[in-house]
Amino acid sequence: MNFRSLCQFLGFLLFVLTVMIFAVALFSTVRYMSAGDNAVAERHAMPALYLTSLLGLILGGILWFVGKGASKRLGQREALLLVALGWLVGAALCALPFRVWADMRPDAELRPHEFDGFVNCYFESMSGLTTTGATILTSIGTIPDSLKLWRATTHWLGGLGIVVLFVAVLPLLGVGGRRLYRIESPGPTPEGVTPRIRDAARVLWLIYLGLTAAEVLALRLCGMSWFDALCHTFATLATGGFSTYDESIAAFDSSAIHAVIIFFMLLAGVNFSLYYAMIQKRWHSIWQNSELRFYFLILVVATVILTASQLAAVPSDESSKPSIAITLRDSLFQAVSIQTTTGFGTADFDQWAPLAKITLVVLMFVGASAGSTGGGIKVIRIVVAAKVLFAEVERAFRPKVVRRLKVGGDLVDPDVKIGCLAYVLGIVILFVIGAALILMIESHRGIDLTTAATASAATLNNIGPGLSAVGPTCNYAWFTSQAKVVMCGLMVLGRLEVYAIIVLFTPRFWQTE
Amino acid sequence: MNFRSLCQFLGFLLFVLTVMIFAVALFSTVRYMSAGDNAVAERHAMPALYLTSLLGLILGGILWFVGKGASKRLGQREALLLVALGWLVGAALCALPFRVWADMRPDAELRPHEFDGFVNCYFESMSGLTTTGATILTSIGTIPDSLKLWRATTHWLGGLGIVVLFVAVLPLLGVGGRRLYRIESPGPTPEGVTPRIRDAARVLWLIYLGLTAAEVLALRLCGMSWFDALCHTFATLATGGFSTYDESIAAFDSSAIHAVIIFFMLLAGVNFSLYYAMIQKRWHSIWQNSELRFYFLILVVATVILTASQLAAVPSDESSKPSIAITLRDSLFQAVSIQTTTGFGTADFDQWAPLAKITLVVLMFVGASAGSTGGGIKVIRIVVAAKVLFAEVERAFRPKVVRRLKVGGDLVDPDVKIGCLAYVLGIVILFVIGAALILMIESHRGIDLTTAATASAATLNNIGPGLSAVGPTCNYAWFTSQAKVVMCGLMVLGRLEVYAIIVLFTPRFWQTE
Repeated sequence: MNFRSLCQFLGFLLFVLTVMIFAVALFSTVRYMSAGDNAVAERHAMPALYLTSLLGLILGGILWFVGKGASKRLGQREALLLVALGWLVGAALCALPFRVWADMRPDAELRPHEFDGFVNCYFESMSGLTTTGATILTSIGTIPDSLKLWRATTHWLGGLGIVVLFVAVLPLLGVGGRRLYRIESPGPTPEGVTPRIRDAARVLWLIYLGLTAAEVLALRLCGMSWFDALCHTFATLATGGFSTYDESIAAFDSSAIHAVIIFFMLLAGVNFSLYYAMIQKRWHSIWQNSELRFYFLILVVATVILTASQLAAVPSDESSKPSIAITLRDSLFQAVSIQTTTGFGTADFDQWAPLAKITLVVLMFVGASAGSTGGGIKVIRIVVAAKVLFAEVERAFRPKVVRRLKVGGDLVDPDVKIGCLAYVLGIVILFVIGAALILMIESHRGIDLTTAATASAATLNNIGPGLSAVGPTCNYAWFTSQAKVVMCGLMVLGRLEVYAIIVLFTPRFWQTE
Repeated sequence: MNFRSLCQFLGFLLFVLTVMIFAVALFSTVRYMSAGDNAVAERHAMPALYLTSLLGLILGGILWFVGKGASKRLGQREALLLVALGWLVGAALCALPFRVWADMRPDAELRPHEFDGFVNCYFESMSGLTTTGATILTSIGTIPDSLKLWRATTHWLGGLGIVVLFVAVLPLLGVGGRRLYRIESPGPTPEGVTPRIRDAARVLWLIYLGLTAAEVLALRLCGMSWFDALCHTFATLATGGFSTYDESIAAFDSSAIHAVIIFFMLLAGVNFSLYYAMIQKRWHSIWQNSELRFYFLILVVATVILTASQLAAVPSDESSKPSIAITLRDSLFQAVSIQTTTGFGTADFDQWAPLAKITLVVLMFVGASAGSTGGGIKVIRIVVAAKVLFAEVERAFRPKVVRRLKVGGDLVDPDVKIGCLAYVLGIVILFVIGAALILMIESHRGIDLTTAATASAATLNNIGPGLSAVGPTCNYAWFTSQAKVVMCGLMVLGRLEVYAIIVLFTPRFWQTE
């Protein structure tokens, strides 16, 4: 293992995060100078942010110097370890602004705040970087605007990181979900790895930036403030889900805003390779992409089920029944928000009919497209797994018939089949372990199974809100620290598609070759 | 599809069931003549049993005549259809003694009984034939001894049927779990199919009979009455779980009885091919059998976890804490009972610590060995799936290393890997669908997720008791008919290893070749 080279890359990563913290510190300063309503709150956030930038600079610098002069070649194991450490260490740095601010605020002695505990801060920053959007804040209004922006920024960075990683870096390095991402992927092909990674990463970064600018503008035009537009854009494109309001998107009563957010959540849940292909005018490979079709198909089916199940449910009071249009709008919003694993809310779906809740939980596991900023199992894996299951049923009565399994015109070889089935099964196992741990840790409080199970599902699949005591109107503040650590583990496992974390626990990974 | 030949085989199956009903009718007559305490109750059971025998005879006769003269060759599709119909139609015939008795009992007009509804009777008989052991009786004492014996007999028949089917018939016909059952299976090999099926079936039947005689004798020696010994033997060897007492095995305070039942549950959960190999003195293939080793390993680990988690739990009152010996005995009994999918109880495990309950639920899914009378996913599939998952983790950082996966010295080919993963995933999907349906059907009563989930798991894996409102001290009487129908479906799906039922819903199965 080339640890020195690893340190250098990690140092570079911390530099990038530090630059972003510094940018938010500048925003805080501007806001403080502007002397508006929100200016006072920035007085204590500003030094916290500058102090953290300094810390990040020092830490990054140390790592950089340790690794200076080392070969810049990253092997497959180094790449995986870098990815894991990037998220684990990165989340620690990103948690510091919250933690330092909690100590600096004027009423620190008088009133406790969720950010007083480092585990809470780490949870919030991990939830941000993994684009989960689960929060430990009982009231978002208690933190200054600059920290709201920083929460949103962790989303944005995490989303960009994941796209670059899974579309440009890992497939070209030949590790991780490599085989999966090669199915019908119109992304870069592995010829001359390093320059191509750089090229692909640059293109993806420009696409991401373009989408960001477009959504900020669209939301501003619909009447959001620049600040809210920026924060919600960051959370949308990363399929994160942190809002600047406790009511999430329900705080905005404008259907136009809902529509814009639905549209950009949809875009964020698409394989970014397709945008790459679009730039290169390879329309055919977009048109032929079966994951894209299934992605939309699942959304349409889910929206119909959600709408129908709510219209069928008889409300206790006829007058309280919402109109069909509102039901359809909320159903579409919630289906898109959950399948893309964003987790924004326009309605308290914990109050919906059982069928609707079950549909949403299924959507949590399905997730968005591979190579998108979304989490979950990913549509393409679901498609392959479903086709394999159907093929197995036929084999039961026609053992000699060999049917070749195709996805989007491409033959799927046995390795990919095994890979997809194993991944789905792995997620199920991790989900069960997560739920079991949460259940055991919190058993003294008599936590219900729905809460434990959806807390596990919502963090593992990087959604954010679950059901019952972690429903859309609730938060994760009330869990014990141990449970929060478990959930941090689930978030990073889900975000890095399991392998990058699991390998660290295998002895063979650490053996010198 | 050769429907006439199918009718003939089905008619033969109904004859066999009729003969057994007739045997129980004779038992009822003898009991009635003996004029003991239990004689009065038999007055109405006796005619019900004779009437059902007559009905069975007529129905079987009609089917036999319809199929008379048809070719006796069964194709792969016919075999699967026969298996499915055997359980579905067989359960209807086996339900009749319950239903007819309910009408004939003297207080039929005055007091309602669970057997008044046919769905309840069908549930009970399906639970018997699938060796599940879930009951809709709120009090077993309300039915006469002959019907208790008939419940146990349905277990015994179902257990025998499943062993013959999966060890002798399906692998030789080349359908269903064929590939799986060929891994390290020391059973008969497919050379000259029909005579070998007959041979193998005869040997298995003799083994089953021998084990039955041995357990009846052992239980009698430990102090059980002949009647209880017979009923509990039938339920043990089939890994069924119906008892003649509401308290199940907790009704017997003798550790010797517990030990005998543990021992025979263990034997019933072993692949019956191994007994076949034992007779042929092929000791090597028994010793080399990795499924057998993992079967015992899982049991030992589970027992340790169950014991430790209970000893660690602090009881509200120190004096109520049971001794270590009793805790160990109950833990061992419950681990064996649940893993072999028998479902007998010596303790109310719904009151155990969370970790213990989670362990038991995991055991429900693991199940017993392939080719045993037990249900669940089966140890060998778990072993293969686990090995594939571990191999996948290594592939994440060593994509070029090809390691060959072996089980018990045999190479596992990709088809078997896909088959095992697909099966595990299929069970998970069916479990979720089952739980979701139960949850939706019973939502008006505010059913909790634990009840719905464990009811689905306990019926799909053919266990019997679950947790919460379907715990060891509860029963399935309170469910709506729709939920009971769903659970009948789950029982038969789990029992026939899914495929024999699922294929009936595929259009291709019904297409003429």
